[in-house]
Amino acid sequence: MDFTQSARSRELLDRLRDFIATEVAPVTARLHAERVAPFAQRADVSGAELWRVSDDFRALQEKARDHGLWNLFLPDPVLGAGLSNVDYAPLAEEMGRNPFSAAVFNCDAPDTGNMEVLHQYGSPEQKERWLKPLLEGEIRSAFCMTEPDVASSDATNMAATAVVEGDEVVLNGRKWWSTGIGSPDCTLLIFMGLTDPEAHRYQRHSMVLVPIDAPGVKVERMLSAMGFYDEPGGHGEVSFTNVRLPLDSIIAGPGRGFEIAQGRLGPGRVHHCMRLVGLAEAALELAIRRGRERVAFGKPLINLGGNRERVADARIAINQLRLLVLHTAWLLDTQGIAGARSAVSEIKVAAPRVAQQVIDFAIQIHGGGGLSNDFPLAGAWTAARALRLADGPDEVHQGLVARFELGRYQ
Amino acid sequence: MDFTQSARSRELLDRLRDFIATEVAPVTARLHAERVAPFAQRADVSGAELWRVSDDFRALQEKARDHGLWNLFLPDPVLGAGLSNVDYAPLAEEMGRNPFSAAVFNCDAPDTGNMEVLHQYGSPEQKERWLKPLLEGEIRSAFCMTEPDVASSDATNMAATAVVEGDEVVLNGRKWWSTGIGSPDCTLLIFMGLTDPEAHRYQRHSMVLVPIDAPGVKVERMLSAMGFYDEPGGHGEVSFTNVRLPLDSIIAGPGRGFEIAQGRLGPGRVHHCMRLVGLAEAALELAIRRGRERVAFGKPLINLGGNRERVADARIAINQLRLLVLHTAWLLDTQGIAGARSAVSEIKVAAPRVAQQVIDFAIQIHGGGGLSNDFPLAGAWTAARALRLADGPDEVHQGLVARFELGRYQ
Amino acid sequence: MDFTQSARSRELLDRLRDFIATEVAPVTARLHAERVAPFAQRADVSGAELWRVSDDFRALQEKARDHGLWNLFLPDPVLGAGLSNVDYAPLAEEMGRNPFSAAVFNCDAPDTGNMEVLHQYGSPEQKERWLKPLLEGEIRSAFCMTEPDVASSDATNMAATAVVEGDEVVLNGRKWWSTGIGSPDCTLLIFMGLTDPEAHRYQRHSMVLVPIDAPGVKVERMLSAMGFYDEPGGHGEVSFTNVRLPLDSIIAGPGRGFEIAQGRLGPGRVHHCMRLVGLAEAALELAIRRGRERVAFGKPLINLGGNRERVADARIAINQLRLLVLHTAWLLDTQGIAGARSAVSEIKVAAPRVAQQVIDFAIQIHGGGGLSNDFPLAGAWTAARALRLADGPDEVHQGLVARFELGRYQ
Amino acid sequence: MDFTQSARSRELLDRLRDFIATEVAPVTARLHAERVAPFAQRADVSGAELWRVSDDFRALQEKARDHGLWNLFLPDPVLGAGLSNVDYAPLAEEMGRNPFSAAVFNCDAPDTGNMEVLHQYGSPEQKERWLKPLLEGEIRSAFCMTEPDVASSDATNMAATAVVEGDEVVLNGRKWWSTGIGSPDCTLLIFMGLTDPEAHRYQRHSMVLVPIDAPGVKVERMLSAMGFYDEPGGHGEVSFTNVRLPLDSIIAGPGRGFEIAQGRLGPGRVHHCMRLVGLAEAALELAIRRGRERVAFGKPLINLGGNRERVADARIAINQLRLLVLHTAWLLDTQGIAGARSAVSEIKVAAPRVAQQVIDFAIQIHGGGGLSNDFPLAGAWTAARALRLADGPDEVHQGLVARFELGRYQ
Repeated sequence: MDFTQSARSRELLDRLRDFIATEVAPVTARLHAERVAPFAQRADVSGAELWRVSDDFRALQEKARDHGLWNLFLPDPVLGAGLSNVDYAPLAEEMGRNPFSAAVFNCDAPDTGNMEVLHQYGSPEQKERWLKPLLEGEIRSAFCMTEPDVASSDATNMAATAVVEGDEVVLNGRKWWSTGIGSPDCTLLIFMGLTDPEAHRYQRHSMVLVPIDAPGVKVERMLSAMGFYDEPGGHGEVSFTNVRLPLDSIIAGPGRGFEIAQGRLGPGRVHHCMRLVGLAEAALELAIRRGRERVAFGKPLINLGGNRERVADARIAINQLRLLVLHTAWLLDTQGIAGARSAVSEIKVAAPRVAQQVIDFAIQIHGGGGLSNDFPLAGAWTAARALRLADGPDEVHQGLVARFELGRYQ
Repeated sequence: MDFTQSARSRELLDRLRDFIATEVAPVTARLHAERVAPFAQRADVSGAELWRVSDDFRALQEKARDHGLWNLFLPDPVLGAGLSNVDYAPLAEEMGRNPFSAAVFNCDAPDTGNMEVLHQYGSPEQKERWLKPLLEGEIRSAFCMTEPDVASSDATNMAATAVVEGDEVVLNGRKWWSTGIGSPDCTLLIFMGLTDPEAHRYQRHSMVLVPIDAPGVKVERMLSAMGFYDEPGGHGEVSFTNVRLPLDSIIAGPGRGFEIAQGRLGPGRVHHCMRLVGLAEAALELAIRRGRERVAFGKPLINLGGNRERVADARIAINQLRLLVLHTAWLLDTQGIAGARSAVSEIKVAAPRVAQQVIDFAIQIHGGGGLSNDFPLAGAWTAARALRLADGPDEVHQGLVARFELGRYQ
Repeated sequence: MDFTQSARSRELLDRLRDFIATEVAPVTARLHAERVAPFAQRADVSGAELWRVSDDFRALQEKARDHGLWNLFLPDPVLGAGLSNVDYAPLAEEMGRNPFSAAVFNCDAPDTGNMEVLHQYGSPEQKERWLKPLLEGEIRSAFCMTEPDVASSDATNMAATAVVEGDEVVLNGRKWWSTGIGSPDCTLLIFMGLTDPEAHRYQRHSMVLVPIDAPGVKVERMLSAMGFYDEPGGHGEVSFTNVRLPLDSIIAGPGRGFEIAQGRLGPGRVHHCMRLVGLAEAALELAIRRGRERVAFGKPLINLGGNRERVADARIAINQLRLLVLHTAWLLDTQGIAGARSAVSEIKVAAPRVAQQVIDFAIQIHGGGGLSNDFPLAGAWTAARALRLADGPDEVHQGLVARFELGRYQ
Repeated sequence: MDFTQSARSRELLDRLRDFIATEVAPVTARLHAERVAPFAQRADVSGAELWRVSDDFRALQEKARDHGLWNLFLPDPVLGAGLSNVDYAPLAEEMGRNPFSAAVFNCDAPDTGNMEVLHQYGSPEQKERWLKPLLEGEIRSAFCMTEPDVASSDATNMAATAVVEGDEVVLNGRKWWSTGIGSPDCTLLIFMGLTDPEAHRYQRHSMVLVPIDAPGVKVERMLSAMGFYDEPGGHGEVSFTNVRLPLDSIIAGPGRGFEIAQGRLGPGRVHHCMRLVGLAEAALELAIRRGRERVAFGKPLINLGGNRERVADARIAINQLRLLVLHTAWLLDTQGIAGARSAVSEIKVAAPRVAQQVIDFAIQIHGGGGLSNDFPLAGAWTAARALRLADGPDEVHQGLVARFELGRYQ
């Protein structure tokens, strides 16, 4: 096990930290306020305010690209930064500390996963049409997998269809939790549906590239998660009604949807977990700073009751989590996804738990303010909670870890 | 210990259940949607939509009053239902199951606590002016105690002032988490401030009745709790700048604020806890119903993994909580607040914990839907979480319980 | 729900407390030391020292019977104290505070359960021969149900047999965790075995009265639980090899074993839980006393870190547990075992958890001493831990509670 | 961070595994039974049986030394194996899986810590007299630090004295939890006492080498931990009454006791934690094997209820713990004790928690057997529990971690 960070990763980390501190941090409060402030007034505001990308944000993206802090997640050395997972981990953690920064560096879900899919499985034409503008940050994308009408934790429940008819594929079904679909920049949807119910259970589905303006595609509504809409990207429910597309809209051909999904979700989950480490660190820092500053009963809050024990437990939990994430990254780097399947599920379970616990403590230390949008804690907690369901609920990942573990003693 | 429910309470409970089932339940979804739906669309909506009371709701209130299901919380047999705490508990629990119903029956915080204060400490004039319309449901009220700039968990930190100048009292300071202040019906604020810093620590503060339109009162903004604004009542931040009021605006005279607050918060906390029992019950029911209905891996979700163990643990936790709440109610009935101080703090700690845990389980069983506003779970969780801070953070109540406990062995 | 303690129960409680304080407490340390001290020396001691009943203990029993503090558990008003479960609960809790006292008052498991079985199902001859001396405290008894070779959590796994051959019943099999079998006074074993594998699953087993000296009965060894032998009663493994007994040794006739076991275990479990409440209370008292007395870093231990929060949480947990136990007792009193099945399983899960947690805290406060036999904490913890398995593991009881709960929404 | 195991460590690990499998494992059951069996019988046995070293064990030690599997813990390349902490970690983990093996390889506490003290701070004469026979396994030793009469979690509470009088040092005081003192081979005690109460708080104490047969030394009794005596080494209470020794019995001279203790406890704690990783792994393996083998309600136990979730959680917890321990080892190797202080305390808190939780699960899966001595689980649980107090209680280590953490934001 060698988690040593390369010189290049260290150098990028320094620049990333610097960029976030000097460029992102100063506008973070404003970006945050633009989104949450309107509804804090009794006056009339327009909902449309929510669903647009601010100029501040676009300027940050521009500047980040100019600084070469762009597409850091992509292992391809030409199109991306060419970093190993171990090397990307500290960068992702750093981005996780600030809720806006991953997107600033074009390193945010679901686009990262979608770009990886296109990079790995896309045809030259698909890459030209979709990957290129995604890599440039000109468009954004959504991933349409989970469905409202079935328990999607069991992939075989999927009811949406992608039926091949001659040289076309016809999509029908309803998806939700399609993250990013609210953005005015969202142009591409990746849709997964059942193509051949008679095939082997891992060869039944296809993954299809769908322009958001294709006839039959309708964004029905945006969903809130624990009260948050996460605008402007948001999470949408979207219906597909006889959406007809040329056959070459299918990625890698019919029947490979499951295989692609597995490949897509591996690194995606790891990136989420890397960012959650940073989120937990940021929450702990906020807790300590607030806890030193505010005084009750004659003492700084942090010195009251069990607060210091909770600080220690948070430190222990975060350190353990970071190491487990690094270990998973190292397995991915050295053994590929096949050697890291249990590990990916382990961090997928562990990371949101740790983050939830640390953030909850930080909220408690902040009192009422912790619940409000004056601090990024309520949003951070929700992000962690949502990840106990997104990309597979805890219980499914625990099941996979247990299956591997039991397999050792068969 | 006798927790036997009286015949009158049983009869009221039957009628209440019936009313909620036949009158409130059918419009609950609509009420809910009115509030949360607008922002689920990308289309333009007006923020003003949030901060109004719907006609449906007003009609329900009207009907509830006609049915005599009104002011059930008030122990006064003439003005209220004249119920003991033990008798009110099952009614409050029932109301807790539906997020709108307590307000339908004019039994919601903070008005209940404010009415109790006026009933117990108000002068005949104060009662005539404020208590009467509150009891009629014509106006609503807010309670302005917690402050943004200090750790309000320590009451002696309070910085707002209520200075007596001749026959006037002058208010200055900033309060937040003033619940209900967003409602267009909110007319009265009860403000607590420092009057005499030299007096005994429990005699320094005054509680003042403030018309919301008094010069110098400004609702600065509405706050969200974990993303929810809880409109139309909401929670506001409000500034008081040289607000001058006649001296007889002070409840029970200068220096009695602390005493009144203690009295006010006792039953208020118990009512919150009673409702949380109902909230947890409702969440468990939702979890079981959804868990039986949805199928994954060939089985109803509820039969997978540790779900049934979690059902059992939820049942055990709720039953214990209900009994602890009833015990506290019985202590209040038989020994008054003085004999129930530790008990009130015990349930204040226990109730949100249990509710949070059960609701979190229900969310997990609902998958992504559980996070959304398609189910009342996200809002319910937030309500429970907020109560770990509102009316005193857990840690302060644990401190009080510990002090009593240690006192037994001195 | 009326948990009011009757005047008679209050009076008995006063006398019980007084007796324990003046008679049992002064010799508790000596009784304790007699058992645990020998092996604390490097010198030679005899194992036989462990497995005898001390004269002190016999004297206490004698005195307790003279004081009428005897067989308090038995609802029969002639043979026992005639108390309801609600009335017995505070007495059992009081006994639970002192590890020796339940036996002093002839109120200890497994004899209590065995006496109840004989009282409820025994023939006049069986009562004369076995119940009478048990009620007199002249003999003791063991219950032989659990088996080493199968998962006994599933009663249908039971492999031991009680085959009817003419006017005899022939026993074969191996049992373990037969509590009390180590005592020199143990004379009677109640054995449960399979009689008719073809019958309905609840009518296959018989319960048989076995003199310990019957040919074919062999106590193979005594077992320790977490290091403790709980001598002199202890827990034994015992083999039955062609043990032939007259047919009238079967309680209530062949095939009724399961029914009797269910009836026996109900109150038995409740008594265990009542005593665990007392055990937890005693541990909390020890924790507080020690925590006030010992000083580190300039403060009493109890004021350091999260200790006061843990005191509060212990108080909350114990109060909730006591109420749940009382509620179960009240259900047993008013609706019988049929109405209390879920409730009995609920406390069977809740009680050891609470006791374990509180005792663990008390151990921690006592430092190394808490682990030793200088305090009753290590033994108490083990008693609580063992009850997460004895009389059915947690998981089986959770399963039953869940089944009832799910049944509400079918 | 590079946790790569060296080729030498891998080779030693292979040989160690092989030796344990072929030599230690076959006699483990017998060694175990020798200690715990006698008291499982009602027959007379002699306590002296407990406090002797078995011939089997001595033979294993002899063979281990011949195989060069000896003193692996010692970083000195001549006297020990010369391994870094990262390289020793997997060996210690392997030893942790079998309760006897650390001692077989002369790698057990407290001798390891005592040898390190002598190696680092001892004079040539002290090394010749004590270190040599310890390294040879000819004698064993105890460490006398903790005291029964004060809260030893605060080192400044220490009451025992080591007063310099001319060319002698005179010891007085009472110590307990002196592990290993029960062994007939125990010859050396390392005693810590107050020498100069006026000196700087870290320069007040001395550490003194005391022959166990020095006049005035008395082993008062052996202590049990949660029922276990851990014979033959055991844990003793020992009094020192005017024990007079030549001045050169003081290690490194008067006043350096605190410094030496700090150095001693660092690696000692890490070794404990390494072994706890192995202990937890062994418990998980037992749980899975038993859970596959035993059947209830028609399924292997491991597939019932939440058991597989608990397997997954155990795997996640153990993996995280191992990484945290390795990280601490790497810090010790690269930055010395000064750079690893928080890390050492972090694992000291985390390791027993994880081990306790996993072992408790394993016990539960084993049913009653899990509590008995038929499996090593009860003893393993106790070992883990004891380490929440030994070498500093959790709360003290949490305090240290919190202090470091808060220091980052000053």
